[in-house]
Amino acid sequence: MGKKLTKRAEDYSKWYNELVVKADLAEASGVRGCMVIKPYGFAIWEKMQAGLDKMFKETGHENAYFPLFIPKSYLSKEASHVEGFAKECAVVTHYRLKNGEDGEGVVVDPEARLEEELIVRPTSETIIWDTYRRWIQSYRDLPLLINQWANVVRWEMRTRLFLRTAEFLWQEGHTAHATEAEAIAEAEQMMHVYAEFAEEHMAVPVIKGLKTASERFAGAVETYCIEALMQDGKALQAGTSHFLGQNFAKAFDVKFANKEGKQEHVWATSWGVSTRLMGALIMTHSDDNGLVLPPKLAPIQVVIVPIYKGMEQLDAISEKVNPLVKELRAQGLSVKYDNRDTHKPGFKFNEYELKGVPVRIAIGQRDLENGTYEIARRDTLEKQTVAADAVVDTVKGLMTEIQENIYKKALDHRAAHITEVGDYDEFKKVLDEKGGFVSAHWDGTGETEEKIKEETKATIRCIPIDAAEEQGSCIYSGKPSNKKVLFAKAY
Amino acid sequence: MGKKLTKRAEDYSKWYNELVVKADLAEASGVRGCMVIKPYGFAIWEKMQAGLDKMFKETGHENAYFPLFIPKSYLSKEASHVEGFAKECAVVTHYRLKNGEDGEGVVVDPEARLEEELIVRPTSETIIWDTYRRWIQSYRDLPLLINQWANVVRWEMRTRLFLRTAEFLWQEGHTAHATEAEAIAEAEQMMHVYAEFAEEHMAVPVIKGLKTASERFAGAVETYCIEALMQDGKALQAGTSHFLGQNFAKAFDVKFANKEGKQEHVWATSWGVSTRLMGALIMTHSDDNGLVLPPKLAPIQVVIVPIYKGMEQLDAISEKVNPLVKELRAQGLSVKYDNRDTHKPGFKFNEYELKGVPVRIAIGQRDLENGTYEIARRDTLEKQTVAADAVVDTVKGLMTEIQENIYKKALDHRAAHITEVGDYDEFKKVLDEKGGFVSAHWDGTGETEEKIKEETKATIRCIPIDAAEEQGSCIYSGKPSNKKVLFAKAY
Repeated sequence: MGKKLTKRAEDYSKWYNELVVKADLAEASGVRGCMVIKPYGFAIWEKMQAGLDKMFKETGHENAYFPLFIPKSYLSKEASHVEGFAKECAVVTHYRLKNGEDGEGVVVDPEARLEEELIVRPTSETIIWDTYRRWIQSYRDLPLLINQWANVVRWEMRTRLFLRTAEFLWQEGHTAHATEAEAIAEAEQMMHVYAEFAEEHMAVPVIKGLKTASERFAGAVETYCIEALMQDGKALQAGTSHFLGQNFAKAFDVKFANKEGKQEHVWATSWGVSTRLMGALIMTHSDDNGLVLPPKLAPIQVVIVPIYKGMEQLDAISEKVNPLVKELRAQGLSVKYDNRDTHKPGFKFNEYELKGVPVRIAIGQRDLENGTYEIARRDTLEKQTVAADAVVDTVKGLMTEIQENIYKKALDHRAAHITEVGDYDEFKKVLDEKGGFVSAHWDGTGETEEKIKEETKATIRCIPIDAAEEQGSCIYSGKPSNKKVLFAKAY
Repeated sequence: MGKKLTKRAEDYSKWYNELVVKADLAEASGVRGCMVIKPYGFAIWEKMQAGLDKMFKETGHENAYFPLFIPKSYLSKEASHVEGFAKECAVVTHYRLKNGEDGEGVVVDPEARLEEELIVRPTSETIIWDTYRRWIQSYRDLPLLINQWANVVRWEMRTRLFLRTAEFLWQEGHTAHATEAEAIAEAEQMMHVYAEFAEEHMAVPVIKGLKTASERFAGAVETYCIEALMQDGKALQAGTSHFLGQNFAKAFDVKFANKEGKQEHVWATSWGVSTRLMGALIMTHSDDNGLVLPPKLAPIQVVIVPIYKGMEQLDAISEKVNPLVKELRAQGLSVKYDNRDTHKPGFKFNEYELKGVPVRIAIGQRDLENGTYEIARRDTLEKQTVAADAVVDTVKGLMTEIQENIYKKALDHRAAHITEVGDYDEFKKVLDEKGGFVSAHWDGTGETEEKIKEETKATIRCIPIDAAEEQGSCIYSGKPSNKKVLFAKAY
């Protein structure tokens, strides 16, 4: 396992980077900014995908697949969209290699230049709306509710595993509607779906809100988001849902005949979450011993470790454990019985703690004699000795309890880190000393937002959807404001 | 629905292209050679993925994810590998666009040239073996059994939906083993897994065999394959599994300490199937009326169409149908009740026939009075009238029957199209007049294989694994041969 994990209090950022690698979640690859998602990390992502995919289908969406490449001219069709993405595009210019001159090895064949360069999709609005033009003629073709699971590429200069990588995995929903109201309702619905997934599956509490104009998706009329708070007091945008108005329909000339036979432009939304959620999951719950995973997303929910001397004792233990494994699996639990003889129990305990397995069951010679098991939960590290016939119920109970407990813990942490402030000095003090979300009046202008960002590095994370109407004055400009917004430093 | 489908006998190739589009499976995109997989087509692919993924996991494999991009130098490390893929590589050379001169729009920023060009993966052996070097130190790290679901790009000049596209979706397994025997056993196992999937899920009979040297994967020591036969008598390679020897381990310097502490190079396999399977599925079963889908892969297994005049009749029918839908779903069946009032029953019948829905249930006024339903099966187009209380059992029975029947039909077709020939004239005659697999003696040389290909367009599809040892002479050269091989024209 190598040396111990850096402690969060020492260096939170280093702790995170080490944890991702040591817990076998992901690692850097030989390609700048691109990660390898290792099997254990990918198993968590698969569970996220399955949970989200089910929710998307329950809300009427279907999956499809669109091309990886986007002709450069498509990207340019929506002005603010190309503005937002042009600076981080991987560009395919050639389609062939050839043997170079002596000693040069294989080189790009200059004769195989593409007529039009292709962009590796940073997001798929343009290629999808080019397709929707063919799919949509009449109001009968609407709404069109489609999702895609895909890889996308944004050539970021500073990358971090899961949080910001040049290539990442995500899903992107792209819907088309006959009316503005329907499209807005869809964008809002998907924000709620994301929030429910974050809270119910990931045990990560989130705040739902609207982005300010400067933080909006390039090409959106309105961006809804869910914002989570990490243990170090920094915010993390966990998902966004965009109301795109008729911007892409106009750029790609997508019209439909309404019930009266009149041609109208279609209304659109898009929404996405990515492998960034892995970062949110890791940073919300984990501790100095390693990962803490919510039972609903843990690839291994229960691990059983035998403590024995000699194969005879191991056989006696296995005779007890094998039927227990079966019984737990019959309850739908994912169980691993680690009877490897190559590693000591202490090593295994550390390994599963590091990997965040929610429940560990140990059984030794004395347990065998007493007909008991020792059950340890990962979240609180508490242990209890339980009679054999109570193990299944105890474990099942713990699944619910741990899921609820880590959510509550995160919620308490967030509650303790939302601070209302009345003036700019207090604002800066809270940001410096305590971090977290700072709730403050803002005059609604981009200039003020920008200045606050320059001076404090804090951005407006969102205008919460449930923010109360209240008269006040902007902490920076003193101008009138009728709502508090949430500031924070962010990932 | 537009005009009728071209008949297979008229123009098989045109029939296929039209069917893929009309049945809403896929269509060409604005990007040369790249397809859009439409929701109905993607739903079939999702079922294939789920079936295969389960089989991979049951045989001990885990999923992971590796980068989309491969540095050019990696590709060059295994000599025959780069030879095989260099001519069809999409190459990323730049990472940014910028605003061009006046009127030029957005252009590639020449200052954002990558130091080393990146290839969009055509397959991932090189990036994965670069990673495995870090993951494998000791025999304890072996076997390493990993699969990836991903998109890959091969810049083919002539493309066809599903069969050959510049970008396609696939899975690629990459395993590492301590011994040659283990790696060979793995490669063989995966060929069997693919064959089982093709036959049990897709209802597509396949022949298992070995590729000849000239048809081997670039970098493989041995390529195992499954070969299917389409209705037009052409063969289609449906999946391959490669024993890679130590080629990639040597190219990427991946060694492990064996039990005696000695350093050895690792033994490897890789294996993959792709969205090409969709082509095999479509071409094996479908007819002049449209798709025929095996129940195990049909997104909609049962469709119920009401035949009514006026909303009162529809209400009476729905009152009967709604509980039936529930009952069928409770049996795990995917059911659609199409009560759209915007389309006539005849239109719906055609649509579901075109889309290959295995069972169609119709209910009209007379059925309502008699307490019956009309049940039609897609594969034989046979109809029967069934009492209401027998519908569920009848439908369940049909699921099995249709799955078996279309498999048997394909198997019979193949049996009728494997011809043993004794000389080259007969060989050419069979190829011209009947098509299918031609079983013939071959002298084992690449020269003969190449000449036969030039003269007849037929290639050696495989050396069947169950081919009997028998003395004979090559149909082309007359030289001795101890086994017959299978030739065919192929997709």
